[in-house]
Amino acid sequence: MPHAADDLQRSIDATGSIAVVGLDPRPALLPPALVQAALAAHGDTQAGVAAAFLAFNRGLIDAVAGKCCALKPQLACYEAYGSAGLRCLEETVAYARTKGIPVIADGKRNDIGSTAEHYQQGFLGAAPGLAGASLPGLGAQWLTINAYLGADGVTPFTGKAPGGTGVFVLVRTSNPSAGDLQDQGGADATVAERMATLVQRWSEGRRGACGLTDIGAVVGATWPAQARTLRGLMPDTLFLVPGYGAQGGSAADALAGMRSDGRGTVVNNSRGIIAAWQKHKSADWQGAARAALEAMNADLATAR
Amino acid sequence: MPHAADDLQRSIDATGSIAVVGLDPRPALLPPALVQAALAAHGDTQAGVAAAFLAFNRGLIDAVAGKCCALKPQLACYEAYGSAGLRCLEETVAYARTKGIPVIADGKRNDIGSTAEHYQQGFLGAAPGLAGASLPGLGAQWLTINAYLGADGVTPFTGKAPGGTGVFVLVRTSNPSAGDLQDQGGADATVAERMATLVQRWSEGRRGACGLTDIGAVVGATWPAQARTLRGLMPDTLFLVPGYGAQGGSAADALAGMRSDGRGTVVNNSRGIIAAWQKHKSADWQGAARAALEAMNADLATAR
Repeated sequence: MPHAADDLQRSIDATGSIAVVGLDPRPALLPPALVQAALAAHGDTQAGVAAAFLAFNRGLIDAVAGKCCALKPQLACYEAYGSAGLRCLEETVAYARTKGIPVIADGKRNDIGSTAEHYQQGFLGAAPGLAGASLPGLGAQWLTINAYLGADGVTPFTGKAPGGTGVFVLVRTSNPSAGDLQDQGGADATVAERMATLVQRWSEGRRGACGLTDIGAVVGATWPAQARTLRGLMPDTLFLVPGYGAQGGSAADALAGMRSDGRGTVVNNSRGIIAAWQKHKSADWQGAARAALEAMNADLATAR
Repeated sequence: MPHAADDLQRSIDATGSIAVVGLDPRPALLPPALVQAALAAHGDTQAGVAAAFLAFNRGLIDAVAGKCCALKPQLACYEAYGSAGLRCLEETVAYARTKGIPVIADGKRNDIGSTAEHYQQGFLGAAPGLAGASLPGLGAQWLTINAYLGADGVTPFTGKAPGGTGVFVLVRTSNPSAGDLQDQGGADATVAERMATLVQRWSEGRRGACGLTDIGAVVGATWPAQARTLRGLMPDTLFLVPGYGAQGGSAADALAGMRSDGRGTVVNNSRGIIAAWQKHKSADWQGAARAALEAMNADLATAR
């Protein structure tokens, strides 16, 4: 049986990297040549932005393939451009699949059971057609979800047993105001700790051969002390760590929740890689992305 | 200055209805004639499902216009069919706008500040183009959001001052396991109550002429005692109440959090209206939807 955590661990082992490249395109991050080509073909329209994003993503995927364990498109960047943006996302994921790179769709989806099923269909599975067809969705391997709604907003994504897809539940996010709710609580546990306890409960019996479960957790690099506490509550959970680099988290911060066996953490970086060409004022945006990723891999290796 | 709560109150006053019609199409709910037409034109594909959904939605909008205060498409139903589904959503919202009916996009979106901005652009605002264009998004008036990430996941949606758009923050959802997290907490407050306190804090200075703010709250009809408590914490907040009908909430349950001035609550119903033709075994699906909505309006009026 396939298991999403085993698949991701295989990708980590094959590439030697725990880095996740965030494919979060924005017009301001696009190389000028791609902008000009898209404007010439489509004008300054949603279709033009989508075409430029797709050319950027394909080039980035070519540049980072084999050097990162996964890709993480941020769905908001695509949804800002409506159905044209979503079509670009579909083509991006299809291209990643041709390279065999696992994709984490960062959508932070959440809803009640019968509705959450539709999100599962759209991002991880297949939806029913009008006359019995099974219509495949985006084809991502993982989806970030928000579990504020409790178990019946989670089980539609996970099913009864592990398979080829998994989820990352938001536990402790990397943003400055994350603590508004997540740090609140009585004397016994914060909201984030309660969420971690729920993740641990939902994960029972879901470990793969690699020792990790298919219900991961988002734990921001900007709060290393909390990452250590949360690891105690979720010993076999894969942590997806945002906040490295641009948001201020160091490699040591990002790895604060890593297990003693060196597993259980993947670290996202978006702008630091895809916009590295701007920082270095380089026309070779693919080379700049690859070099930035290699530097990140080295930084993480030193800190491990 | 426009104010989303004033606009919605005007729609309530004009229609005499606090009912919100949930446009949550699923293949199993479609009238056979629409299915056959879509299959003939597109086959059993995502485009076929999207075409059938659009014909259904347009017919439903014609049927309920003037008798409900707003429409609430559930984004998951559309995202299950990828970019074709999202295109159907765009055309549905465009059609609703021609009828002047406010639209609540039910996406429960959430992310950190810089990313939440993109969701705001995609659903409520406009996104930047490649060369200075401002590219309008879906054009909904309201978006449901999940505020687990705290203030900086909310302010990108609301801006500094009220305008023509607003949000509904998930406070207490209607699903059976809502309490897994939302009812937890110390002796002083549950997580849902803490969220309500945050909503109240974020809403300061945002009341419209109608007395309500543009930061509403989702408070499920299935928990009337909690709705009363939450009203005490959020006196000027518009409650969007799911769970009436199919999920078991009565009219009295749905109105448990209504203010003493009879304002501050709108009540969603999806399947009870859009699938009324199935319950009554009627080929006139539009007439069945209209009759079901009129019955809901009467039920709510009696309970007020």
